[in-house]
Amino acid sequence: MAKEVFCEPDFSFDDDSLHEECGVFGILGHNDAATLTALGLHALQHRGQEAAGIVSYDGTVFHQEKHMGLVGDHYTNPKTLANLPGDRAIGHTRYSTTGETALRNVQPLFAELEVGGIAIAHNGNLTNGLTIRRQLIASGAICQSTSDSEVVLHLIARSRHAKSSERFVDAIRQIEGGFAMIALTRSKLIAARDPVGIRPLVMGELDGKPIFCSETCALDIIGAKYIRDVENGEVIICQLQKNGEITINTIKPKDRKPEKLCLFEYVYFARPDSIIGGRSVYNARKNMGIYLAKEAPCEGDVVVPVPDGGTPAAIGYAQQSGIPFELGIIRNHYVGRTFIEPTQQIRAFGVKLKHSANRPVIEGKRVVLIDDSIVRGTTSIKIVQMLREAGAKEVHIRVASPMIFYPDFYGIDTPEAAKLLANQYPDLKSMCEFIGADSLQFLSLDGLYMAVGGEVRNNADPQFTDHYFTGDYPTRLVDQENADNVHKLSVLNCG
Amino acid sequence: MAKEVFCEPDFSFDDDSLHEECGVFGILGHNDAATLTALGLHALQHRGQEAAGIVSYDGTVFHQEKHMGLVGDHYTNPKTLANLPGDRAIGHTRYSTTGETALRNVQPLFAELEVGGIAIAHNGNLTNGLTIRRQLIASGAICQSTSDSEVVLHLIARSRHAKSSERFVDAIRQIEGGFAMIALTRSKLIAARDPVGIRPLVMGELDGKPIFCSETCALDIIGAKYIRDVENGEVIICQLQKNGEITINTIKPKDRKPEKLCLFEYVYFARPDSIIGGRSVYNARKNMGIYLAKEAPCEGDVVVPVPDGGTPAAIGYAQQSGIPFELGIIRNHYVGRTFIEPTQQIRAFGVKLKHSANRPVIEGKRVVLIDDSIVRGTTSIKIVQMLREAGAKEVHIRVASPMIFYPDFYGIDTPEAAKLLANQYPDLKSMCEFIGADSLQFLSLDGLYMAVGGEVRNNADPQFTDHYFTGDYPTRLVDQENADNVHKLSVLNCG
Amino acid sequence: MAKEVFCEPDFSFDDDSLHEECGVFGILGHNDAATLTALGLHALQHRGQEAAGIVSYDGTVFHQEKHMGLVGDHYTNPKTLANLPGDRAIGHTRYSTTGETALRNVQPLFAELEVGGIAIAHNGNLTNGLTIRRQLIASGAICQSTSDSEVVLHLIARSRHAKSSERFVDAIRQIEGGFAMIALTRSKLIAARDPVGIRPLVMGELDGKPIFCSETCALDIIGAKYIRDVENGEVIICQLQKNGEITINTIKPKDRKPEKLCLFEYVYFARPDSIIGGRSVYNARKNMGIYLAKEAPCEGDVVVPVPDGGTPAAIGYAQQSGIPFELGIIRNHYVGRTFIEPTQQIRAFGVKLKHSANRPVIEGKRVVLIDDSIVRGTTSIKIVQMLREAGAKEVHIRVASPMIFYPDFYGIDTPEAAKLLANQYPDLKSMCEFIGADSLQFLSLDGLYMAVGGEVRNNADPQFTDHYFTGDYPTRLVDQENADNVHKLSVLNCG
Amino acid sequence: MAKEVFCEPDFSFDDDSLHEECGVFGILGHNDAATLTALGLHALQHRGQEAAGIVSYDGTVFHQEKHMGLVGDHYTNPKTLANLPGDRAIGHTRYSTTGETALRNVQPLFAELEVGGIAIAHNGNLTNGLTIRRQLIASGAICQSTSDSEVVLHLIARSRHAKSSERFVDAIRQIEGGFAMIALTRSKLIAARDPVGIRPLVMGELDGKPIFCSETCALDIIGAKYIRDVENGEVIICQLQKNGEITINTIKPKDRKPEKLCLFEYVYFARPDSIIGGRSVYNARKNMGIYLAKEAPCEGDVVVPVPDGGTPAAIGYAQQSGIPFELGIIRNHYVGRTFIEPTQQIRAFGVKLKHSANRPVIEGKRVVLIDDSIVRGTTSIKIVQMLREAGAKEVHIRVASPMIFYPDFYGIDTPEAAKLLANQYPDLKSMCEFIGADSLQFLSLDGLYMAVGGEVRNNADPQFTDHYFTGDYPTRLVDQENADNVHKLSVLNCG
Repeated sequence: MAKEVFCEPDFSFDDDSLHEECGVFGILGHNDAATLTALGLHALQHRGQEAAGIVSYDGTVFHQEKHMGLVGDHYTNPKTLANLPGDRAIGHTRYSTTGETALRNVQPLFAELEVGGIAIAHNGNLTNGLTIRRQLIASGAICQSTSDSEVVLHLIARSRHAKSSERFVDAIRQIEGGFAMIALTRSKLIAARDPVGIRPLVMGELDGKPIFCSETCALDIIGAKYIRDVENGEVIICQLQKNGEITINTIKPKDRKPEKLCLFEYVYFARPDSIIGGRSVYNARKNMGIYLAKEAPCEGDVVVPVPDGGTPAAIGYAQQSGIPFELGIIRNHYVGRTFIEPTQQIRAFGVKLKHSANRPVIEGKRVVLIDDSIVRGTTSIKIVQMLREAGAKEVHIRVASPMIFYPDFYGIDTPEAAKLLANQYPDLKSMCEFIGADSLQFLSLDGLYMAVGGEVRNNADPQFTDHYFTGDYPTRLVDQENADNVHKLSVLNCG
Repeated sequence: MAKEVFCEPDFSFDDDSLHEECGVFGILGHNDAATLTALGLHALQHRGQEAAGIVSYDGTVFHQEKHMGLVGDHYTNPKTLANLPGDRAIGHTRYSTTGETALRNVQPLFAELEVGGIAIAHNGNLTNGLTIRRQLIASGAICQSTSDSEVVLHLIARSRHAKSSERFVDAIRQIEGGFAMIALTRSKLIAARDPVGIRPLVMGELDGKPIFCSETCALDIIGAKYIRDVENGEVIICQLQKNGEITINTIKPKDRKPEKLCLFEYVYFARPDSIIGGRSVYNARKNMGIYLAKEAPCEGDVVVPVPDGGTPAAIGYAQQSGIPFELGIIRNHYVGRTFIEPTQQIRAFGVKLKHSANRPVIEGKRVVLIDDSIVRGTTSIKIVQMLREAGAKEVHIRVASPMIFYPDFYGIDTPEAAKLLANQYPDLKSMCEFIGADSLQFLSLDGLYMAVGGEVRNNADPQFTDHYFTGDYPTRLVDQENADNVHKLSVLNCG
Repeated sequence: MAKEVFCEPDFSFDDDSLHEECGVFGILGHNDAATLTALGLHALQHRGQEAAGIVSYDGTVFHQEKHMGLVGDHYTNPKTLANLPGDRAIGHTRYSTTGETALRNVQPLFAELEVGGIAIAHNGNLTNGLTIRRQLIASGAICQSTSDSEVVLHLIARSRHAKSSERFVDAIRQIEGGFAMIALTRSKLIAARDPVGIRPLVMGELDGKPIFCSETCALDIIGAKYIRDVENGEVIICQLQKNGEITINTIKPKDRKPEKLCLFEYVYFARPDSIIGGRSVYNARKNMGIYLAKEAPCEGDVVVPVPDGGTPAAIGYAQQSGIPFELGIIRNHYVGRTFIEPTQQIRAFGVKLKHSANRPVIEGKRVVLIDDSIVRGTTSIKIVQMLREAGAKEVHIRVASPMIFYPDFYGIDTPEAAKLLANQYPDLKSMCEFIGADSLQFLSLDGLYMAVGGEVRNNADPQFTDHYFTGDYPTRLVDQENADNVHKLSVLNCG
Repeated sequence: MAKEVFCEPDFSFDDDSLHEECGVFGILGHNDAATLTALGLHALQHRGQEAAGIVSYDGTVFHQEKHMGLVGDHYTNPKTLANLPGDRAIGHTRYSTTGETALRNVQPLFAELEVGGIAIAHNGNLTNGLTIRRQLIASGAICQSTSDSEVVLHLIARSRHAKSSERFVDAIRQIEGGFAMIALTRSKLIAARDPVGIRPLVMGELDGKPIFCSETCALDIIGAKYIRDVENGEVIICQLQKNGEITINTIKPKDRKPEKLCLFEYVYFARPDSIIGGRSVYNARKNMGIYLAKEAPCEGDVVVPVPDGGTPAAIGYAQQSGIPFELGIIRNHYVGRTFIEPTQQIRAFGVKLKHSANRPVIEGKRVVLIDDSIVRGTTSIKIVQMLREAGAKEVHIRVASPMIFYPDFYGIDTPEAAKLLANQYPDLKSMCEFIGADSLQFLSLDGLYMAVGGEVRNNADPQFTDHYFTGDYPTRLVDQENADNVHKLSVLNCG
């Protein structure tokens, strides 16, 4: 099959997966700031495909470009990059959680303060964002977007502190939830991570200049060196001095507890070549397959991944079980990147637009099908059916993560709880019947903890954020406690 | 990593692969003709991503839609499909071999004849196309496009035969080269394959209605049944009778010789889940890896494919050698589908935009790198360098096909001969040095024949088309013999 | 009111006027050939607003640009003009008579002949175009467009003559109807006008280089000098010699009769500042108003034109009658140039989107309303109603041309005969009632002849083409005689 | 010349005219609110062609559409209007005074307040806008746009009053300058006009529902009845009661002084069919011509307007002087509406792209050329030259307004003072030489006052705003007094 080409996405008429909101990147003091930011965002594209924005500062004026679509669609254009002069820049790539795909929601967001401009880029979700927003509006603030990030911007603008970095810290102290945030002021690049450390944020360095980004893959693409993770609750302030030197200061909470990274970063979100919390995502996924093979062995002829998410776990499962790994499902790389609503006839072809069975590998075989996770189960049904039509003798599903029961409030876009497969059926057997497989097994929670961290779950104080499996939320849920907040917004409908 | 999304293509600044020209699809007598054609073309998207067209006939009028871009970009749109009424349709997806990406070259091409309209869709290349074109112009024909298909259309229009199907056969008799052609007249769907059988063309059936398409994957996506390959030199004429029945007639050459399919369909072009000439493409590729492991064994710690083309061979190599298969290179699915010329800085990142090394898998390891083929070698250099930067102890390249020495004239877009790696260096050792690998081995020609067909090459009468490896062209090269033809054309430059 | 801006067109939901098809322009030997052609076409924009094209020749290769929309939308772009190098160019601006607004119908049309390329641009309509087209298809020609011009191109391509200019003359001899045609070969600029001289075509000169164009206003915009009209039946061949000199040869029919220009050019089509057949269009229109005032005097307080067509006649009527000329109707210059079908509510506002009554001028007044012509009368109804709502005491319509009874076949897009006002009502009185005016008078045919040419109509051999008023067609109507031709075409529907 | 057509604007490479910023429209309680608003904005298109926006409220949610371009380009689209449900709406059409043509500056602007949403649309300019903006930012407000209207929105959001209408009045009290403002809250349509009454704003009624708009022509297009002008300093609050009745309250300043409308509305901005301050704009302009003929008589053969602005005055001049009115300059209606920067060659044709001389009217004549105003004089030079090239024996310019010396701060976009013709030359004679005319005369200030208001200027307390002629500003210029404000803004450059 031709190598060069591709181009998907979507056709996700029957959306059966989770989505994260964003990737962030920032660099200070480098002459190719905007270009490096564009490349970093390109490497973080899997964290958000709806839109991307970059803000740079040239010593006098801030510059901004925001575009719907992929990074590579716009930010390879010499004209676009020429509009972003300066040796410091931050960028953001966005996945839209709401239906509103408006440019005004594209980050970084910018505000002109009395003390100078500030731009911020944010991955995550605040658990008290609506509550603060309501207070802001009550005191006369005008909110233009529906994003949490604007709330932070208002807190900065209203802070009584003099310096922009102090205002930023002041604002960070008031928000709760999961966040990885980068800010650019005239002379500073600032990074902040939420107190629990739910969302990832790493620090790197290129030619001696500091970089912050969501994942290490954004360092790799530009040949930058990984330094360390930003710690949970930490604020790092890099300042370009007048002599050209960069000073780096860090503010850490006194009573810092161990970070609890979101397990779904390992299961599904992060790129396999990234290192998150010091652990290889690829190895973690392969381990999930290995533990899965131990916990849920299966008589089978071939191990087949649901591409591409299930592939590392399938390699692990195959190595552990000795059953050969085969590409029994071929992915169509050209799923159209279009917002056109397809005809009913085409919609009916659903999963086949994206995947097709590789009949010679499947026919007459007992297939061990490895998927990374099951959300609603609707895709699983179609894949099992497709494999059976291709002649599979048996289809045994092995899922490389536990069942999902609870919604997320830290930046993952989850369907409503009632639509989750695990909440629709009382037991494995009925789920398996629903999906139409011959057997169905999920990785245990401890299996997942072992695969990722090498230890079973400490139930008293879990090592990771895992509420979607357990209901054990790592923070208060302020907005949820004030449920009337939730539907208060979006009084303006932009057609 | 997020499953849903993707969207590449391109960023092929440093184009180091081969391209084929087209995929074709046609169906007669089915109420969803245009929708099924769109889906079939979507499955054939890997054969051409520049543009796609569909012509349908509704019993009274022919309808046409042609669009630059991917099938999924346009042909999922209910409006577009509603513009293609009727129970018979043919479609074409195009890869542009020339710089001119103009709508007027997008197929199917249509002509109004005295006996009614005819549309044709063509995959391949004529070896006497320019020669015929010169004759046509001399006798007063006006050529609007630069495509071979227009030449065929003129031959049909000028044929003295009465019926359109007879005219089509008359035209087919005059052309030489590699072609898989589908035509639609008011009541007939006609398929023709070149006398040697270089380009593939299969026949299928859905709800009792005949289908022709380039590969079986286009049958699978719509749940159609594979019937047989169109034979080399065969013309099949399906006619919708007034009573609604469909009659099928076939015209075969008397002295038919065995077909000689293009080996590159197996090595690279066809989708792995397709069955070409009765052979699984995936299995053929896996076999190439198996034979490669036998011919060119290697002390290594991990077998790593150059994704996605090298993956099946890598699986075969790993199974045969016992060295574990690992995803040591991660592919970025979001390479931008844009025609914007990127900045020099971004261009410099070259292969990294598409691929990244998965460091934890590579670091300190002896890597056996499997690629499907090497054309110019420029990408190989960068991949080896990337793996070394990720800490690979050794990099041994094993290529699942022989060295390429000769250009193609049957529909594959090859670089000029002098730029082919095999023509630039006298021996393996110097090629290996050029690429920077620790060792380099290619699959032997007999190894490839064994992997695909189970027999070594019959040098007296080879079982496959293999001139790119051997210089042994399966037909005359008429236009090449009249070399002055070649630059005669494109007197009109459409800006 | 702001001077600068404007931008209409259209909103012609209720189309009640005639349209002509095209304007043409060509120049040979001038370094700014494409730029001058673009400017000339801009001055001819009133003859066609759908699309514009330019073909240039740089001594080696022909270059082409074709764009939907206005000349100023595309041909001011430096990139576009840079794509049109060379010192000779021809251009065309097109009004679409059919619903199909496809680029493939945009002129100039180009063909590569054995003797080199040729491009042609054409204003008018052939009366034997369909008949020839049928013959061409029967003998194997492939027609890509639905335009008459392609027929001419085929005749040129099939001519047995050696030189392209001889082939052009050969083709011209075979066609009938009304046409003004310009052709560009590698070294020649050729102009031809139909034997009757229905459509205008003038010759000018800039810096010693020959120019042909539809009207003198295209000479004025570039500061070129008017030389003479191309005569009816004449072919003028300008050739650029190798020494840079330009030779001009002319071929005239032996038995040339006096030309008979289309009267509607004077009444409505031509720009008022053009000189057609040696007569000022503005003065002709003003004269129509003067004769109208003599033939159809009226007791009134104000003379009000229907802008902009009726303005010169209204000035003439006011001067002759002594009734003051006032702008009683204001035209909205910003009628949107959009293909969006408006909502029913907006459509209902019809004429008001384009015109509004100037109440202080109208209120309590007896209005003498001057229009250039009445086609269907539907607009007149609405204007009368609008004036009455604005308080007009009386509305007397005076039309500066005779009643229209017959369709045109020489390039004017006329509604079907039954929809013409003059064919719907038996007498002036009932037409006046239909329109709702207090009185209605048309200029007499002799009045029009006097206004334009200074003599009454020579009924034995009329001085002008006037069949829309009289049914007296100046040529045979070959295609009409073979009525089955008419609906033979457009077998292909491009959605 | 074809009637139907259209479409300019611009080609204003050599911009030599004044521009106003906006037109506003609002309606309460009518089922076709958005459609009527679109039509009203279409009639106000001459006040701003860059962009247009509409906000509607459907009883639950506010809806918004904003588009660059003309009203007719977008707001005739059924889909667009369907996105604007509800029986109340306000709209805005914008002329951009700055280079930044960004959607975020397109009005109406919207804010969600604690008490519900509010949208505002504004024509004019605040003289203390920057001063307030600086105060707002100092107290933590975030400004997204660069428009004065956002300042008003912030004042509303921060007001301590409970009801949105009270907040609006509170905000209006704090701003200074020239403004005509319309606001929409959930149940109220509010209109406000500046204390001096510089910008126009009228009240009308359709089917018993209140309407506010900039000019009466927006009432005429929808057949609405004019009620009265909003008075200077007045705020009118229309509220839709729960029983469907509409109550109307008005708040007037106690010590209201007579309004002083901007004279340039009469000279140039307003549509000729509008009634401003109870006076017909057309009649005012015709009167300017009449007074001009009295003040500055001229021996001439023809009176020729510079179209279209000079036409009414030319009619007046002709009637008063007895010299015949003729269309000696023809306007090209098709000046392209494009943002493409034209080539230098085309730019050089300057005024000819928009205007052409009607030679038969001009040749050998003494031309009295009537223009509405002269700003920089650069266009006048070209027009005089064009007339001379067309054979004019003499060209005498008569300008229907006085010389312009001073910049405007109330919503008119004036060139810097030094570029105004009147500031570049010491006397009429040298101006006339610069322009190249045979004579040059301007209407006197008293002549203009007589033409518009029937009385000479009361120098102690002028009846109109006339500072561009006199330097006599009708308000304080707060921002100008704090000159450092001026360049404080636009810290963010959106490429």
